[in-house]
Amino acid sequence: MPPISKKVHINVDLGEGYGNFKAGPDDELIPLIDHANVACGFHAGDPLIMSETVAKCKEHNILIGAHPGLPDIQGFGRREIKMSPEELTAMTRYQVGALQAFLNAANVPLNHVKPHGVLYGMMYRDKEICRAVYAGVPPGTRVFGLAGTFHEEVAKEMGLPFTAELYGDVKYSSDGKLVIDRKKKPWTSEDVHKHVSSQVENSSVTAVTGEEVQLPIGDHDVSLCCHSDSPGALEIVKAARQIVDDFNKKMKYT
Amino acid sequence: MPPISKKVHINVDLGEGYGNFKAGPDDELIPLIDHANVACGFHAGDPLIMSETVAKCKEHNILIGAHPGLPDIQGFGRREIKMSPEELTAMTRYQVGALQAFLNAANVPLNHVKPHGVLYGMMYRDKEICRAVYAGVPPGTRVFGLAGTFHEEVAKEMGLPFTAELYGDVKYSSDGKLVIDRKKKPWTSEDVHKHVSSQVENSSVTAVTGEEVQLPIGDHDVSLCCHSDSPGALEIVKAARQIVDDFNKKMKYT
Amino acid sequence: MPPISKKVHINVDLGEGYGNFKAGPDDELIPLIDHANVACGFHAGDPLIMSETVAKCKEHNILIGAHPGLPDIQGFGRREIKMSPEELTAMTRYQVGALQAFLNAANVPLNHVKPHGVLYGMMYRDKEICRAVYAGVPPGTRVFGLAGTFHEEVAKEMGLPFTAELYGDVKYSSDGKLVIDRKKKPWTSEDVHKHVSSQVENSSVTAVTGEEVQLPIGDHDVSLCCHSDSPGALEIVKAARQIVDDFNKKMKYT
Amino acid sequence: MPPISKKVHINVDLGEGYGNFKAGPDDELIPLIDHANVACGFHAGDPLIMSETVAKCKEHNILIGAHPGLPDIQGFGRREIKMSPEELTAMTRYQVGALQAFLNAANVPLNHVKPHGVLYGMMYRDKEICRAVYAGVPPGTRVFGLAGTFHEEVAKEMGLPFTAELYGDVKYSSDGKLVIDRKKKPWTSEDVHKHVSSQVENSSVTAVTGEEVQLPIGDHDVSLCCHSDSPGALEIVKAARQIVDDFNKKMKYT
Repeated sequence: MPPISKKVHINVDLGEGYGNFKAGPDDELIPLIDHANVACGFHAGDPLIMSETVAKCKEHNILIGAHPGLPDIQGFGRREIKMSPEELTAMTRYQVGALQAFLNAANVPLNHVKPHGVLYGMMYRDKEICRAVYAGVPPGTRVFGLAGTFHEEVAKEMGLPFTAELYGDVKYSSDGKLVIDRKKKPWTSEDVHKHVSSQVENSSVTAVTGEEVQLPIGDHDVSLCCHSDSPGALEIVKAARQIVDDFNKKMKYT
Repeated sequence: MPPISKKVHINVDLGEGYGNFKAGPDDELIPLIDHANVACGFHAGDPLIMSETVAKCKEHNILIGAHPGLPDIQGFGRREIKMSPEELTAMTRYQVGALQAFLNAANVPLNHVKPHGVLYGMMYRDKEICRAVYAGVPPGTRVFGLAGTFHEEVAKEMGLPFTAELYGDVKYSSDGKLVIDRKKKPWTSEDVHKHVSSQVENSSVTAVTGEEVQLPIGDHDVSLCCHSDSPGALEIVKAARQIVDDFNKKMKYT
Repeated sequence: MPPISKKVHINVDLGEGYGNFKAGPDDELIPLIDHANVACGFHAGDPLIMSETVAKCKEHNILIGAHPGLPDIQGFGRREIKMSPEELTAMTRYQVGALQAFLNAANVPLNHVKPHGVLYGMMYRDKEICRAVYAGVPPGTRVFGLAGTFHEEVAKEMGLPFTAELYGDVKYSSDGKLVIDRKKKPWTSEDVHKHVSSQVENSSVTAVTGEEVQLPIGDHDVSLCCHSDSPGALEIVKAARQIVDDFNKKMKYT
Repeated sequence: MPPISKKVHINVDLGEGYGNFKAGPDDELIPLIDHANVACGFHAGDPLIMSETVAKCKEHNILIGAHPGLPDIQGFGRREIKMSPEELTAMTRYQVGALQAFLNAANVPLNHVKPHGVLYGMMYRDKEICRAVYAGVPPGTRVFGLAGTFHEEVAKEMGLPFTAELYGDVKYSSDGKLVIDRKKKPWTSEDVHKHVSSQVENSSVTAVTGEEVQLPIGDHDVSLCCHSDSPGALEIVKAARQIVDDFNKKMKYT
């Protein structure tokens, strides 16, 4: 299986605290990444945190995307909620609009939209849900998603530019989907190394059930996702940065 | 005391339901008014209601403003909360941005921003609070407020166009401020008539303590506010519409 | 098919407002009913409304039960949320405990627990969910539910006394389950009459798909549920009261 | 000034996470303390966390109290909200009742009630607020508060047993009140040592403005409060435990 055909970037979910509650080590992560997915207040994030997160990302020239989630702070957007398509569209539009206001105030553009948590999974499992969420994304805005799923298919159908994601700290099932836990388990840096290297070098990954799964990345733009709330997030991102930089250099991707 | 020197308009707070909960008779009110203040999800309103409210207002060519409130659905934005200036700015920016997304999708402009409930009162009583909220308003956007208070003074200072409000269903204190109740009391149409006529004809109003209070409207644009959650809201707005139309006609304001 | 074998009572969900938002005409309904299911703050209700609702029910000697729901005011507890069994148990225990405090202060006992909305449906469709919710009910407390479903089976298994519910304003599917809408549709009093009479006179009901469905009520205690947020709730409950009273009198149930 | 006249205990606020968000190092703190104030879901805590926190405290034979706060997860109960006396009473009753349900299920008694954050301060500054909150406490239940303030006066008036608190990680103003920050600042162990020793040895403390303030503890039961969300909470509590144990031993308090 071929290596990834374009420069690989790294994205991380940021601003996922709430009020006095902290989530990840955002300040340490920001200098290490290319794309930030900023929580928009529904699964995490609050207006002040959004404002501060945008400011920090701008300072480090990180491209900023919206990270809308289900309306469930207590469940951190990881409990499935059955919402109507109209609710999903409105909820997405609301959150992206809220982030846009902070971007406008900081005079930086919206780079992309990446749905959070279980919403992301609901979208690749259900085409109607995917359409409903994308209907709330500003026309022509780039979306981040899983290649070979409704994420990609519906983005194409609706004229939204698509970036294929790899996952640095989430395991895959044998059908190329993700295995999401409500609370994250620790990764060893060895595990991360094997997991990420395989994805960038071979466009493939070992599923939780042992099979080797090919990732249909094609010639999409690529961004590797790591989570700021994973145990050992900083080490994971550092390891991923090294692997990705080495890979990009070796492949002469610029 | 002189009559109002410009055409008088009518504004109403709309979209103040939440999920299955209804607030006012929005469908009946919309055809009767000029300006809608659309709740943005913090004191009332949810993304779906915002979307539907914008659509209805657009259909009737009503000018649409954002109606940001304190984060307190249970208190309907009528319980004072002590927030830092940074929180107030971020909260305002967030809510206005969320509404802007629905306006963008409907291809209608944001006409103005009018803070809701006790936040409105906190702003005319405290200059720092007023500045913090206005700092979250997009530059150059019109604000609705109470003439002769920090609303007007800070708007001028920050370069925000100002529309002076009259109140159709709220009483005044002797210093020209408003007397706000958590739950509204009924008005007779006679009371409304006297209350509104006095304001447009003489730029003055009888305070709850009996004094005649002059309203320093000057040559500002003017919009008379009525509340959709007042008991008998529809009758109040109908009465106000008649008085305002008669006044505008008599004065040949167009 | 036989008539119901015991006196039929009427229960209504009450206290389902939130802050300034009103739900049903509680004051008019209370004198007409036997059992109140009081919302506990998660899908509706807030501490002050709970306090006031308990006081009103006590005044009319209505038996009071807890009405716990999913944590979703915006969805009024009618959007399915996937929660762990531990979360479901804890959420139920929390809400019933909160109501118990108001009952203690008013010196009235907790009569029963009746889960709200989609949670009620999730429980009769999924035994694990039913067990998780009942695990949060104080030992020995009566539960209201649908006979012939996991509601009844699990109550028996866990030693909880069981009252079988009939439904005055909700339609049935052909398997004897309920057809729940997020927003209720109006009923004519003729429809209510036919719907209720059939249930009490024959223990059967016409499903939405036309079949006649037998209700396995057996010799359980029986309470007919009407909803305070149905359009025309007061007329529905009045009609149901008349039918139930006539039936109880005819059958000499006391 | 005299030393504290009774055995000094230590209390800590626990269970102040929310969903996936963690607050303090509860597991490490529990073995070190005597009294736990368990968050009840309004400023922090959720039903599952409450359930788990009660279980852990029971395991270590810690006495458990309710820790009701203002309804403001985002502000962590540290933003003042103006609520009516009826709302304050109902809110307190609700939260204490919810915790009581977990205590009942674990078969442990409610030891005390200690209001959280800014509510605690509002109560010692405003007698009506203090009365309203205490009106929601079950009759005869012990309350923890600040001696010489409305906390003590109103507890006496309402027949509630009173435990006087000392503060291990909060500074005092010159009137013996507390200086509360929305976000806590770090303490050195030297500072803690001086701050706590002075309180237990001399019933006095140095105010932020430099004056020596006498604490009117009298012969009340005494518990020293430390906060689980203070930076370095574990070290603070360890230091406090040592000082308190040495003091109790020296004074032969058992």
